[in-house]
Amino acid sequence: MHEKWMRMALNEAQKSRGLTSPNPNVGAVIVKQGEILGRGVHRKAGLPHGEREAIADALTRHSADELRGSTIYVTLEPCSTQGRTPACVQGILEMGISSVVYGAVDPNPEHAGRADGILQAQGVEVTAGVLAEQCEYEHRGFFKRMRSGRPWVIAKSAMSLDGKITRPAGEGQWLTGAEARAEVQNIRCESDAIITGGNTVRADDPALTLRGENVPAGKIQPWRVVMTRSDARFLPNSAKLFNDEFSDRTLVYQNESPASVLKQLAEMDCNVVMLECGGVLLGEFVKAGLVDECVFFYAPMICGGSKDGVGDGDMQLANSLHMKNPQWSQLGNDLMVRGEVNC
Amino acid sequence: MHEKWMRMALNEAQKSRGLTSPNPNVGAVIVKQGEILGRGVHRKAGLPHGEREAIADALTRHSADELRGSTIYVTLEPCSTQGRTPACVQGILEMGISSVVYGAVDPNPEHAGRADGILQAQGVEVTAGVLAEQCEYEHRGFFKRMRSGRPWVIAKSAMSLDGKITRPAGEGQWLTGAEARAEVQNIRCESDAIITGGNTVRADDPALTLRGENVPAGKIQPWRVVMTRSDARFLPNSAKLFNDEFSDRTLVYQNESPASVLKQLAEMDCNVVMLECGGVLLGEFVKAGLVDECVFFYAPMICGGSKDGVGDGDMQLANSLHMKNPQWSQLGNDLMVRGEVNC
Repeated sequence: MHEKWMRMALNEAQKSRGLTSPNPNVGAVIVKQGEILGRGVHRKAGLPHGEREAIADALTRHSADELRGSTIYVTLEPCSTQGRTPACVQGILEMGISSVVYGAVDPNPEHAGRADGILQAQGVEVTAGVLAEQCEYEHRGFFKRMRSGRPWVIAKSAMSLDGKITRPAGEGQWLTGAEARAEVQNIRCESDAIITGGNTVRADDPALTLRGENVPAGKIQPWRVVMTRSDARFLPNSAKLFNDEFSDRTLVYQNESPASVLKQLAEMDCNVVMLECGGVLLGEFVKAGLVDECVFFYAPMICGGSKDGVGDGDMQLANSLHMKNPQWSQLGNDLMVRGEVNC
Repeated sequence: MHEKWMRMALNEAQKSRGLTSPNPNVGAVIVKQGEILGRGVHRKAGLPHGEREAIADALTRHSADELRGSTIYVTLEPCSTQGRTPACVQGILEMGISSVVYGAVDPNPEHAGRADGILQAQGVEVTAGVLAEQCEYEHRGFFKRMRSGRPWVIAKSAMSLDGKITRPAGEGQWLTGAEARAEVQNIRCESDAIITGGNTVRADDPALTLRGENVPAGKIQPWRVVMTRSDARFLPNSAKLFNDEFSDRTLVYQNESPASVLKQLAEMDCNVVMLECGGVLLGEFVKAGLVDECVFFYAPMICGGSKDGVGDGDMQLANSLHMKNPQWSQLGNDLMVRGEVNC
């Protein structure tokens, strides 16, 4: 039964994917005698946490008395310290909630499990680690940043069957079809920053904006990060990134390592960063062990040419990167594989 | 209804995939009043054609009288000329079969549709072109050879997600898992010859033999064809291809073009040829427009290195090759895409 309700808390969490950085998109459900009293999700940094949202939701339909003796399911250990908002454990105790079930343990080793003691001291039953892996995965950007000081990095590439990213001259720029490109938009919505390379800016002039029907309300334009080896003055002034309505969301890093750029983005509250760049820059992230997840699209064509999707045509790796539990799916005529990679 | 019975004839045909070259694996079903009287498939060159097999099968359970007035469904237009066996139209007429439904038209333009006239002149009803596309696809090797003097070419490759075919040093040779490798065996069983390159012989010493439980009875070892640019004497004497029990099924072509090798294989009755070679040789077939179908496997890893699955790292194509109706399927942790390509 715990897992069933935790899955509902995870469903709540999904509603805020990409919206809450630097915070995790914690979801919560309050249950009493098999009935859901309230549900909620953290919507944005500075607004109430998921637990508070669920309590507030419950109180719109139920009296405070009815909440007494209920169980709250939370995807992450409730916070035990005052941040921008009051500690959630206090809110839980104030409402007389008698049982707390949470998924992932706070990634901060100084806080990990601290909620348990505070709650148990007040007679609240605590069950930790229900669907812990799924919950941690849902909050993987937050966990990654808390543990390593770097964001979770999703590498996206769209390749031909032969692993190339350009088509023969005169055939146009796109390899993949509309369904695959729509999915790219969904990944952008999960991201706090999108990294591209100077060469891509020069060759493709991408906008890297959020488009389509699936952009959630409240999603702000991810940072658009240009990494360039050449003098930044050689980037075209006319590029969309420097001229459109989101030009204040464009950053240029010149001659900085992938690790350095990621560290700075983490300091700017980015939990999840997406790579949308050519193979050379993507290969640098791969070689540096900085890619956490890959989303690769394959178009059913053989294109040839010298532009690899990953690497520079002779990328040397000491060990291959393996994708855990690859999820293959067909999108129109294209194929998508997505999964976490070891690094 | 025609399509339902033709599908059963196609099912018969599939039983002889890869077994009948230079002939097509024609399947047939004899139906009367909604009941199947007999079914059959051509089993091997020199043995009776599918129509004759179906008639013989019917006669094991039914009298010749019962066959009169029946309908025969055949995947290919019945032959109208005496070959190694008597013409099938004669057999059909002799049995008093009153209706012939066939799929694909004889690819020989001098024969195409000739059965219709012969049968109709004797009062037999003829319906041509039922599931014609599927039937022609089932017999595509035969059609290709009849029309072009070259076999149907299936290019197989197993790549990493970044389109490479070697793993970092010390990691071993295999990219894909057992399920994908078993599927490769199935494709070998559909083939009359397997082409590899001298470099592959030197690097991997492949056996290119048929293994596993799915090898059909009667399947003979496909030719193992080594294409090499260097002097054939530089191929290792110790290679399995020259020493195992099938060494008489190994051919070496030195400094011959893909088109020339394919022409010679067609003259040796090969309908279907499979490429199991490195990217350089595969790329030569691609550039020459000689690949008809691709079966590519992708292992969920990023390997790097300079060995492309297709091409030499800078294969220039005037136009990309497109795969028609790509069929994606997951095999274990690997992915397979299979489909006909334009060429």
